Amino acid sequence: MTQTPKSKPFHRLLLTGAAGGLGRMLRERVKTWTEIVRLSDVADMGAAAEGEEIVRCDLADNAAVRAMMEGVQAVLHFGGISVEARFEPIMQANILGLYNLYEAVHKAGVKRVVYASSNHVTGFYQTTELVDATMPQRPDSFYGVSKCFGEALSRYYYDRFGIETVCLRIGSSFPEPRNARMMTTYLSYDDLVELIRCALFTPRVGHTIAFGNSDNDTTWWDNSQAAHLGYQPKDSSRAFAHLFPDTAERPPADDPTTIYQGGPFVLAGPQY
Amino acid sequence: MTQTPKSKPFHRLLLTGAAGGLGRMLRERVKTWTEIVRLSDVADMGAAAEGEEIVRCDLADNAAVRAMMEGVQAVLHFGGISVEARFEPIMQANILGLYNLYEAVHKAGVKRVVYASSNHVTGFYQTTELVDATMPQRPDSFYGVSKCFGEALSRYYYDRFGIETVCLRIGSSFPEPRNARMMTTYLSYDDLVELIRCALFTPRVGHTIAFGNSDNDTTWWDNSQAAHLGYQPKDSSRAFAHLFPDTAERPPADDPTTIYQGGPFVLAGPQY
Amino acid sequence: MTQTPKSKPFHRLLLTGAAGGLGRMLRERVKTWTEIVRLSDVADMGAAAEGEEIVRCDLADNAAVRAMMEGVQAVLHFGGISVEARFEPIMQANILGLYNLYEAVHKAGVKRVVYASSNHVTGFYQTTELVDATMPQRPDSFYGVSKCFGEALSRYYYDRFGIETVCLRIGSSFPEPRNARMMTTYLSYDDLVELIRCALFTPRVGHTIAFGNSDNDTTWWDNSQAAHLGYQPKDSSRAFAHLFPDTAERPPADDPTTIYQGGPFVLAGPQY
Amino acid sequence: MTQTPKSKPFHRLLLTGAAGGLGRMLRERVKTWTEIVRLSDVADMGAAAEGEEIVRCDLADNAAVRAMMEGVQAVLHFGGISVEARFEPIMQANILGLYNLYEAVHKAGVKRVVYASSNHVTGFYQTTELVDATMPQRPDSFYGVSKCFGEALSRYYYDRFGIETVCLRIGSSFPEPRNARMMTTYLSYDDLVELIRCALFTPRVGHTIAFGNSDNDTTWWDNSQAAHLGYQPKDSSRAFAHLFPDTAERPPADDPTTIYQGGPFVLAGPQY
Amino acid sequence: MTQTPKSKPFHRLLLTGAAGGLGRMLRERVKTWTEIVRLSDVADMGAAAEGEEIVRCDLADNAAVRAMMEGVQAVLHFGGISVEARFEPIMQANILGLYNLYEAVHKAGVKRVVYASSNHVTGFYQTTELVDATMPQRPDSFYGVSKCFGEALSRYYYDRFGIETVCLRIGSSFPEPRNARMMTTYLSYDDLVELIRCALFTPRVGHTIAFGNSDNDTTWWDNSQAAHLGYQPKDSSRAFAHLFPDTAERPPADDPTTIYQGGPFVLAGPQY
Amino acid sequence: MTQTPKSKPFHRLLLTGAAGGLGRMLRERVKTWTEIVRLSDVADMGAAAEGEEIVRCDLADNAAVRAMMEGVQAVLHFGGISVEARFEPIMQANILGLYNLYEAVHKAGVKRVVYASSNHVTGFYQTTELVDATMPQRPDSFYGVSKCFGEALSRYYYDRFGIETVCLRIGSSFPEPRNARMMTTYLSYDDLVELIRCALFTPRVGHTIAFGNSDNDTTWWDNSQAAHLGYQPKDSSRAFAHLFPDTAERPPADDPTTIYQGGPFVLAGPQY
Repeated sequence: MTQTPKSKPFHRLLLTGAAGGLGRMLRERVKTWTEIVRLSDVADMGAAAEGEEIVRCDLADNAAVRAMMEGVQAVLHFGGISVEARFEPIMQANILGLYNLYEAVHKAGVKRVVYASSNHVTGFYQTTELVDATMPQRPDSFYGVSKCFGEALSRYYYDRFGIETVCLRIGSSFPEPRNARMMTTYLSYDDLVELIRCALFTPRVGHTIAFGNSDNDTTWWDNSQAAHLGYQPKDSSRAFAHLFPDTAERPPADDPTTIYQGGPFVLAGPQY
Repeated sequence: MTQTPKSKPFHRLLLTGAAGGLGRMLRERVKTWTEIVRLSDVADMGAAAEGEEIVRCDLADNAAVRAMMEGVQAVLHFGGISVEARFEPIMQANILGLYNLYEAVHKAGVKRVVYASSNHVTGFYQTTELVDATMPQRPDSFYGVSKCFGEALSRYYYDRFGIETVCLRIGSSFPEPRNARMMTTYLSYDDLVELIRCALFTPRVGHTIAFGNSDNDTTWWDNSQAAHLGYQPKDSSRAFAHLFPDTAERPPADDPTTIYQGGPFVLAGPQY
Repeated sequence: MTQTPKSKPFHRLLLTGAAGGLGRMLRERVKTWTEIVRLSDVADMGAAAEGEEIVRCDLADNAAVRAMMEGVQAVLHFGGISVEARFEPIMQANILGLYNLYEAVHKAGVKRVVYASSNHVTGFYQTTELVDATMPQRPDSFYGVSKCFGEALSRYYYDRFGIETVCLRIGSSFPEPRNARMMTTYLSYDDLVELIRCALFTPRVGHTIAFGNSDNDTTWWDNSQAAHLGYQPKDSSRAFAHLFPDTAERPPADDPTTIYQGGPFVLAGPQY
Repeated sequence: MTQTPKSKPFHRLLLTGAAGGLGRMLRERVKTWTEIVRLSDVADMGAAAEGEEIVRCDLADNAAVRAMMEGVQAVLHFGGISVEARFEPIMQANILGLYNLYEAVHKAGVKRVVYASSNHVTGFYQTTELVDATMPQRPDSFYGVSKCFGEALSRYYYDRFGIETVCLRIGSSFPEPRNARMMTTYLSYDDLVELIRCALFTPRVGHTIAFGNSDNDTTWWDNSQAAHLGYQPKDSSRAFAHLFPDTAERPPADDPTTIYQGGPFVLAGPQY
Repeated sequence: MTQTPKSKPFHRLLLTGAAGGLGRMLRERVKTWTEIVRLSDVADMGAAAEGEEIVRCDLADNAAVRAMMEGVQAVLHFGGISVEARFEPIMQANILGLYNLYEAVHKAGVKRVVYASSNHVTGFYQTTELVDATMPQRPDSFYGVSKCFGEALSRYYYDRFGIETVCLRIGSSFPEPRNARMMTTYLSYDDLVELIRCALFTPRVGHTIAFGNSDNDTTWWDNSQAAHLGYQPKDSSRAFAHLFPDTAERPPADDPTTIYQGGPFVLAGPQY
Repeated sequence: MTQTPKSKPFHRLLLTGAAGGLGRMLRERVKTWTEIVRLSDVADMGAAAEGEEIVRCDLADNAAVRAMMEGVQAVLHFGGISVEARFEPIMQANILGLYNLYEAVHKAGVKRVVYASSNHVTGFYQTTELVDATMPQRPDSFYGVSKCFGEALSRYYYDRFGIETVCLRIGSSFPEPRNARMMTTYLSYDDLVELIRCALFTPRVGHTIAFGNSDNDTTWWDNSQAAHLGYQPKDSSRAFAHLFPDTAERPPADDPTTIYQGGPFVLAGPQY
């Protein structure tokens, strides 16, 4: 009896947040790299297609997360809450959930995590500043604060246990920019997939923080600290420049959403 | 009828963690600055003395924290868990508890918080490195990670709402150094009190991160980013040098507790 | 009665120095952005074409400058002296003149200025050094000193009054490089126009210092602090490499005009 | 015939601004270093005492300044306007006057200048920031802008002609602190004299920028770039701490004079 | 009698190490720049072709090196040992040999040297770090240490005698990458030749340290300090990506050859 | 039979260069720390006193060095040539000798070396610059180059084999300053001994570079990267200020020995 030669680098990848916007897009794209993709979300993900395993799971449920991790080689963690919300649910999903995830990763012997962090970790820097991965965090929201926690927790698991993580400070990953700010923060789906590929296959990443944006004309982020990943974006928001012409109305220069990189997030926190 | 002249700068300060080691020491010392000190802890604090108000309160109880904050002008936040422990209780006390505290601070119109952060926020730097407040966090424990969260959350409340916080990365504040490592990290009680005084009375602190150590011969921390506080330590661990003579046995140079600034904390995390 | 739709982003731009080398080139090019261009210079500018207003004005004349600013939305300040000269006329044109300009800007409610600074602000850095916008100025001439003044004055008007300025440290903007040094400092006309466009239309610029050079093979300038402008040069001096072949005679390596970035300017100051 | 042995290091020092507050104090103190002190001011300086030469001179008068410089070995330049004022007189005294001074210095072969710059060169940094001599200028007033000019001009004369200057960014040099801000910026007369001594006698100073403050508890300035001067302040504002007790009323933390290092200067510019 | 016009910028270049791998490749390529190439090696170089001079020479022989330098205008120093070996022969060839070379250079009045340094000067940085020319050396082998010596010696000859050197920290210059590590360190022959051209013809180089790699997707090196050279690589290891697919076996992430940039060199030192 | 309790931290220290100026001073002083001091030099060291072992040894003799290292716990390496000389003897003593020393250290299992480097490693920085341990070397002599080699070699032995070294960039260690330059570079014997003590007894030093100067008023060196050593100088050259009064003649400001930190060394190299 002959054995099928190994044609994909991974046997089983876990993709969390598979019912979310990016998760649905990645569901197909990750199959290039893995024979089996295990899909997880708290929401419904439909039926499992070929090469898929469906595990519905609340990240705040320690035992469930641990079970979900069995047999996994690497994790793409896109689960949790990815917009501003009240603190308590964010804490459950993005803080307790992340702890549960890393404990499971550790116990299952998983060696690498690609973690969907966010540009909102540094959203309170000004739009005239250039931010790199070594500068202090300045979160713009509870959501941003929870991602700061995630970067700290994953750093701990690397320093303490050698579990490698690439934290992707994702900009705005949509089919196209939705407002003028996204001309700077835009990350095309293809470029996001390429960035994840780099994060998965670079021989050693330690604990790397990488900004996720396409090759847009403007940028607020200096990604040189992640040069070892080899991420080379192929797309650019300039393909959409016609959507935001110089004649368009814009908020005044002293509007908080113009002053700060986080844009509308800087006003989206608790209202009293 | 004559009015008693104001003789103390604050009318009411809140001291959380009043039943803890540092809280018990501070209970008396803070009375220099305030007519009334409101004392809070989840544990028993004994009876209220003159000028004291006792509020027993679980920081994880949002409503209780909010009630505790009424009429307060400034907060010395020494509450929560200050050693390594399982993640869940740390999360309740140091993460949910801190959120509750800042929400109450915001709603009560309090303008300044002195927050007991910890050197364990950067405990995974090596003992041959000089760390300053602008360098990335490298927590050495779940406890350290929770303090990273606290620094991020307080930064957010400053950038978003203008609430000022001084984060004190306290070294080892005990009557005297308990081991050789504490010759570097020692912070005398008098120096801690002086540091808190600076944090309370500097006209503007924004969001300041300050290391808390006495004027010891060795240091791992560059406190120049907090020079505006005017903290001038008067004590030094060198008064205790005889306790740790050059002839003493020490762990080898390649022991993790010698390599990393966090000392024993770097091994104190989850055991499997 | 129907209203003509707005087809250009500005109603009236002021271009000073309109009779100068760059001013004459810009006179036509700016019309893309503005319905009316007001042209100003102390020298003759010929007759006003359609969409042009001609205001002959000495920048040292406070009242005249103030009158010139009426109804203006943004300023492209290319006026003043742009070569080395005696100090007194430079002071009149570039120092008193600039003060007059900013006072008028302030009083007229203009919100943004594009200021033609110069690479001669840093001309005494060596040609083996990489200069960025945060490094101390090292002017190479009285002209350069006057541009240092301009960067300081515009910084003040931003910090004090919120008037935004982009200081362009223009290299050598000519139809083509005129000597070997300009292979490094060359800025094509098209790239200058694009840089001005970025400076005008970036939603927020605060006080930005940007180097103005094309995408030449060699550079002495790190423009990353201006990444938020989104300036992407399209031209390069390499198109003119044949003019300065490796076989050409060059000044020796220890000639001041070779040692310092300012080239001939470093010798052009007062002669005794 | 015997020759009197040289007992003072300089034969003739020029002190400009001799009628001003610091000038009057320095008039006696500089005699330690020089056989003759030439005193200059636009205002009356009284009669010449032994070892003094009086030269009344408007710095804006090129010929007069040149005459004043004859026979001088080094210059202490404390002349000009040292408070916020209208731009034109500041320009005459601090810009044209400084040009005249350096031209005269150059022609007379003077090799060293001690230049009274000001902390208002960086007055728009925040009171939570630590400023050093390599950071960009952020002037808080026309006065501050004129001192930025002076630092640039003196840099030019050093790079071009080798004339050495020490720019002293003087804090608040008075008999004692006059307000709470001066607890940070205080420079005692003795310490100022010592700083000038260091600036005069260090064998080589090139172009040095040094902050002038006493050994106060709080500071906003990192003077390490001037460590080669060997300036060691002996006084401290803490001797005056009782004048500004913690119980004193202070402006709120979000008042511009509290936010920015320049204090009242940040509001002292042109009023409309 | 007519004179042949000068058609090549140099009359005589010296290429040392001409029998080595890179030397053999360069032997032909350098003829573009020089009428005569003097070839030197301790090993046999075959017969001299047109425009060639053959000088067999042991670099450790001071007199021979001095003779070899007669009439030379510039040196491409690729001689010595370029792999890990015992210390003594490395010292003879790379330390004593280099001293001999620079003494001869000095005495012969040669003004510029292109020195083949190596990435192994910084081989003990981790593969997640970005190294630039200003960071401390971290050699990974005796070979690397000898190149550290070379960078220090050439710096001395520049600071003391004005002899210019470009130190090329060459990555892996082969026809194609030989292992996965070389996907990052690859330097094509064409790009090496271009880098040498830049090093020879930039009007002034002082003492420049430049990393030598092609435009590969991943990099560990920030070459911005050599921007004045104008080196623009045209090739990239991505042309060979198919040789090292994501499915390939790789050493584990915690293998020293994966952790450190030096790869196998970090284990190649003395074995006991 | 009772055993004498251990009263000194080391059993046997090796002091090389014991016949040199610093070696003779240290010979007695080190006995505080060690029961036996093994003394080594190529020159005569007199007879062995109690607690001393004399080993006459040429550092260039590999076997002799290896024998000398038997039974040694730590090394104070003050041997070799410590002034400018011809290159060949420097290479034998300071390059080959150092290699021999570290090979012997490695084979004997010695874990820590205190290495007498020199300020001449950075002697070509200017006397207006502040140098720290992370900045590139700029040696001022062959001697300085040999110490650059030593810092690189010891770095290699640490990164590769974990052998810890403290490189002491010793200033001018004499009973008192011998010239005006030494007012800045002075290191008293007591302070040198204290610095060595710190280097020996700090629990972990990795590879540390420390500047060796007393608490002089002026300094060119920022020693903060060695703060973990806890070196606190007690002496200062200001005790000798009367030897170099302000009235003394000094070399002009543009003399190389005044411009560069290395002083006379910058002119002491090869003469032609």
